Amino acid sequence: MTDAATEGPLFDTVVIIGVGLIGSSLALNIRKQGLARRVVGVSRSAENRAKILELGLADSVTDDAAEAVVGADCVLMCTAVGAYASLAEQIGPHLSAGCIVSDVGSTKGSVIADIQPHMPEGVHFVPAHPIAGTEQSGPAAGFASLYKDRWVILTPLPGGAREPVERIAALWRACGAMIDEMDALHHDRVLAMTSHLPHLIAYTIVDTATQLEDDLKSEVIKFSASGFRDFTRIAGSDPTMWRDVFLNNREVVLDLLQRFQEDLVNMQRAIRRGDGDFLFDRFTETRDIRSSIVEARQAGQFIPTEGE
Amino acid sequence: MTDAATEGPLFDTVVIIGVGLIGSSLALNIRKQGLARRVVGVSRSAENRAKILELGLADSVTDDAAEAVVGADCVLMCTAVGAYASLAEQIGPHLSAGCIVSDVGSTKGSVIADIQPHMPEGVHFVPAHPIAGTEQSGPAAGFASLYKDRWVILTPLPGGAREPVERIAALWRACGAMIDEMDALHHDRVLAMTSHLPHLIAYTIVDTATQLEDDLKSEVIKFSASGFRDFTRIAGSDPTMWRDVFLNNREVVLDLLQRFQEDLVNMQRAIRRGDGDFLFDRFTETRDIRSSIVEARQAGQFIPTEGE
Repeated sequence: MTDAATEGPLFDTVVIIGVGLIGSSLALNIRKQGLARRVVGVSRSAENRAKILELGLADSVTDDAAEAVVGADCVLMCTAVGAYASLAEQIGPHLSAGCIVSDVGSTKGSVIADIQPHMPEGVHFVPAHPIAGTEQSGPAAGFASLYKDRWVILTPLPGGAREPVERIAALWRACGAMIDEMDALHHDRVLAMTSHLPHLIAYTIVDTATQLEDDLKSEVIKFSASGFRDFTRIAGSDPTMWRDVFLNNREVVLDLLQRFQEDLVNMQRAIRRGDGDFLFDRFTETRDIRSSIVEARQAGQFIPTEGE
Repeated sequence: MTDAATEGPLFDTVVIIGVGLIGSSLALNIRKQGLARRVVGVSRSAENRAKILELGLADSVTDDAAEAVVGADCVLMCTAVGAYASLAEQIGPHLSAGCIVSDVGSTKGSVIADIQPHMPEGVHFVPAHPIAGTEQSGPAAGFASLYKDRWVILTPLPGGAREPVERIAALWRACGAMIDEMDALHHDRVLAMTSHLPHLIAYTIVDTATQLEDDLKSEVIKFSASGFRDFTRIAGSDPTMWRDVFLNNREVVLDLLQRFQEDLVNMQRAIRRGDGDFLFDRFTETRDIRSSIVEARQAGQFIPTEGE
């Protein structure tokens, strides 16, 4: 445990609204490293509030976000993005001048539109998105190393103060993360390709398998190691979070989905016509992106034996 | 090294036609455990033939499959499935009575149609498919543990002799694999869902990303850890092998692809209409299959740090 008192913590009171995988992993880092004097956890579920205290994730818990933020100098919104507009409306009038509000949402254009109008004069909103997660959820799923060597994208509002952006960056760096900054709409395009479309496709192919006859389905599970299981891992993610992502990055996802469908129809036609050259060329081109990912040391490692 | 002489090896001379990832991993097991007195490697590439000898994968190499099989009691066809028909036609007249011919193809209906008509009286064809692989290819990619705890599906011809099936099963068990038997067409349906459709989808989504503008593409690589990289790993597989799979399991793949596209259009419509309940229900249902895979100990483990 770092003796935070020597340099002083980053914040006095941090309020974490929504203590799931992302919020609890943040809380573990804040507590372990003394990044704040006090952590308040906000959760609507009595069971989760008990769990938060039991796990020592916060000094106190409440189900009242408006009450929780009074006097806080940092508020981190960590629920699914669909809840942000209503939460911002609730907490807005109770925020203190100088307070920094940030979030962890996977869509940034919608989050800015939902939160910023409710922020009073003198409160700084710093939109943030940690590119990290597992298919687990809930306050007990968190672990301190979740953000180690992972990217956190900040999408600061044009013309806003720099100091709050730097403090949120410092919070994430203390969690082991690397920081990038970009425009919110650019973020939404990049993430639609790297995350939102892959998740939609993965959910869909598992949905297709779910509708198979029972005898076939049991063998699909038995022989899932041949490719299918990688999709099921992605499709094991939190349904509420992902519902909200698709509803809140709708236009960009629909545009990319349209392109994907065109590409898929081309593949389909080539298979139907027996056009092996077309397939071979596509399958060869796609190797370049894989090589670039391996070179960028973003490839990860898959261990094909059981272990989860 | 097992002293094979005490129990006698399974085969006298094994000919491996096509010494890539699958063939070289088989050769390593055969040599290491003395499963045959002699291994002959067949490769069209002079570079690969030199590599095969250098790595000690075979006692001798040739580019002439017909010559290689003379006097052999086991022939393993390990090329991409598109080459099987012509290879079977070449080797057929040179096979000795009692010889067991087997293969490793990912499609079984087409493989039987391509090989069986060329098998002379007294030669036994045992169709086989090891559910194992990596995204690497070539004779140097092989490793002895590739088949450990992996399934090998045998699809014996109705009415054929059992003894050849048992010997091929024994060969794979000696490599550490588990054996299952099923009808060829059932195999093709199961694998279309667990392997062929996932690979087609993965190739397609990487194809979609390949067509993005350059600045967006470089960020897609940088932030690929958020889901996309799992698809690129699958899409890094051997283009020739996969071209042949789609051309040789065409009807079943097209049928499943049609179902997938219908399911995808339903997702698209729900996003367009903002139907969060539909999305939430689909995303919840798909969790069951994931749980079943974890329970069946087929989930594997993903390590999100670099390492490849």
